[in-house]
Amino acid sequence: MEVTPNHTQTVTGWAAMDESGKVEPFIFKRRENGVDDVTIKVQYCGMCHTDLHFIQNDWGITMYPVVPGHEITGVVTKVGSNVSGFKVGDRVGVGCISASCLDCEHCHRSEENYCDKVTLTYNGIFWDGTVTYGGYSNMLVANKRFVVRIPDNLPLDAAAPLLCAGITVYSPMKQHGMLQSGGNLGVIGLGGLGHVAVKFGKAFGLRVTVISTSPAKEREARERLKADDFIVSTNQKQMQAMARSLDYIIDTVSAKHSLGPILELLKVNGKLVLVAAPDQPVELPSFPLIFGKRTVSGSMTGGLKETKEMLDLCGEHNITCDIELVSTDRINEALARLARNDVRYRFVINIGGNSKL
Amino acid sequence: MEVTPNHTQTVTGWAAMDESGKVEPFIFKRRENGVDDVTIKVQYCGMCHTDLHFIQNDWGITMYPVVPGHEITGVVTKVGSNVSGFKVGDRVGVGCISASCLDCEHCHRSEENYCDKVTLTYNGIFWDGTVTYGGYSNMLVANKRFVVRIPDNLPLDAAAPLLCAGITVYSPMKQHGMLQSGGNLGVIGLGGLGHVAVKFGKAFGLRVTVISTSPAKEREARERLKADDFIVSTNQKQMQAMARSLDYIIDTVSAKHSLGPILELLKVNGKLVLVAAPDQPVELPSFPLIFGKRTVSGSMTGGLKETKEMLDLCGEHNITCDIELVSTDRINEALARLARNDVRYRFVINIGGNSKL
Repeated sequence: MEVTPNHTQTVTGWAAMDESGKVEPFIFKRRENGVDDVTIKVQYCGMCHTDLHFIQNDWGITMYPVVPGHEITGVVTKVGSNVSGFKVGDRVGVGCISASCLDCEHCHRSEENYCDKVTLTYNGIFWDGTVTYGGYSNMLVANKRFVVRIPDNLPLDAAAPLLCAGITVYSPMKQHGMLQSGGNLGVIGLGGLGHVAVKFGKAFGLRVTVISTSPAKEREARERLKADDFIVSTNQKQMQAMARSLDYIIDTVSAKHSLGPILELLKVNGKLVLVAAPDQPVELPSFPLIFGKRTVSGSMTGGLKETKEMLDLCGEHNITCDIELVSTDRINEALARLARNDVRYRFVINIGGNSKL
Repeated sequence: MEVTPNHTQTVTGWAAMDESGKVEPFIFKRRENGVDDVTIKVQYCGMCHTDLHFIQNDWGITMYPVVPGHEITGVVTKVGSNVSGFKVGDRVGVGCISASCLDCEHCHRSEENYCDKVTLTYNGIFWDGTVTYGGYSNMLVANKRFVVRIPDNLPLDAAAPLLCAGITVYSPMKQHGMLQSGGNLGVIGLGGLGHVAVKFGKAFGLRVTVISTSPAKEREARERLKADDFIVSTNQKQMQAMARSLDYIIDTVSAKHSLGPILELLKVNGKLVLVAAPDQPVELPSFPLIFGKRTVSGSMTGGLKETKEMLDLCGEHNITCDIELVSTDRINEALARLARNDVRYRFVINIGGNSKL
């Protein structure tokens, strides 16, 4: 692949230049809008915990400068000549993926997220060999395949985190049959991912139990998110009382932890899905796994077909994220709070300024 | 439950009296043959790694004296008045389970192994409140539900380990659809469980790759067990060449280990089943799990219906275990060798003496 990109468009964004954990204004270039491309004026971008991992180089794979952001919503300002699905003015979103090979079994099934050559929306290598820059920026050029429409009734700010947090919990919920089950769902960790999992669970008729280290979250879990039950994971009595009671668990905890006590909550044949990416291995004791024929699966975001389906369902059920809007001059403050999980439940950067779209 | 057992029959067995790792001759009592019971003259008993864990109290739950053994074959010498399925002279076996509640959803599905009140064949608490003693003994009284017939064409010695090693790998292979798949199976660890998994895999048309720490096992894996492929788990080049190639993995390793490098061998959506019980948690790195939407499941032996089905299939396909026969005066020697995995592939104690049945 020839690395002679036609990157002529000047963009303002926010980039981390090193491992200090901060971003700063950053001027860079994006490619011209190609025949298959959609140019988007970015209005909002959610702040995912993954952004922090990349900013701090927690996984050792960051290519600085890194412009984070993969929960992007905005408005179409230009479409290529091969683009029929979008027009100028459309309200659209871009999630974690900006490219994939388009021709493997996974791409054919619209599981682009599991394509061997998947390119992330930032810190990835695009088809033209350039490093991708994410949504902490005022403009984005995206291939049409990786652009989705935001339902008319959903506000662009509170919908933005659906592009990562939403699809990340929706995909395994669907694939493991949770949404049709009427069963008992446990949600571990009440953050950006967890709070959406609770909303999906309730919207689809599951009985939802929130499992958290923080007793202080009980009230909001029950009252604001309508969770049916709440237990504190360090309270052995509560944990034992719930033994063998759950059909499914969505584990959203990105810190190192043991799955042992959590697995005991599952019925025989119960399924736990890990959707976060702790940088240390989690501990998996064999006894609760084998004695209960239980399953621990992983899941990473979702494909484009599933993302569109999720957004349509969110439109129908009026599901959005609970967010705190952040102005562009306070991103670092928000990053610091994100690092200590001090957010209810997702920061969204107001890239476009004051326009409430 | 009243603890006044009618335990009047004197039995000679071999018991561990403490954590020293050795057994010694031990005279004890078993119950009278009840109306639902079958009395069995024990001919052979396989030596499972679990025996060693209990003998040494590795899991901290041993009740001494412990008479190990749950891979038991022998001949029926008495049947109760309610027993219609067995008669004196029948060639039978008893596996890991001696009792369960008989009335929960799991028992109703003949998943007695997942019953909340499952009683193991040794070191368990039976319905009458007594501690169960296993097959390192010359006679056993077993409830009819937990007795299985050994197919006529299978020798009782080489069939004995099917009652634990066999069903332990058969159950997850069936439940995860491996036996009908024609897919690629990896078997980690070529011991008692692993070598049966290879045999089942080949019998059911899978392509089988053995993954071992020991290069010395390659020849026997390929020539004796007919494995299609063999890779050394510490050989990074071999491991990388096999990345994303397997549909299933049966992990039989009972030492602490990391699942990370192993999971990389699985295709997207691939399934690993842990059937051993390491006493330390295994390490589960999140990346290979979530990036490949992979699954780690546990499985513990199998139910009685499945055990009968497995034995019938073993009869049809003429599958038995590769064993080393051990006389009763050399059990401790065999235990010492078992502790260092020096066995091809299962020790079976010749309890009945010289009679080759």
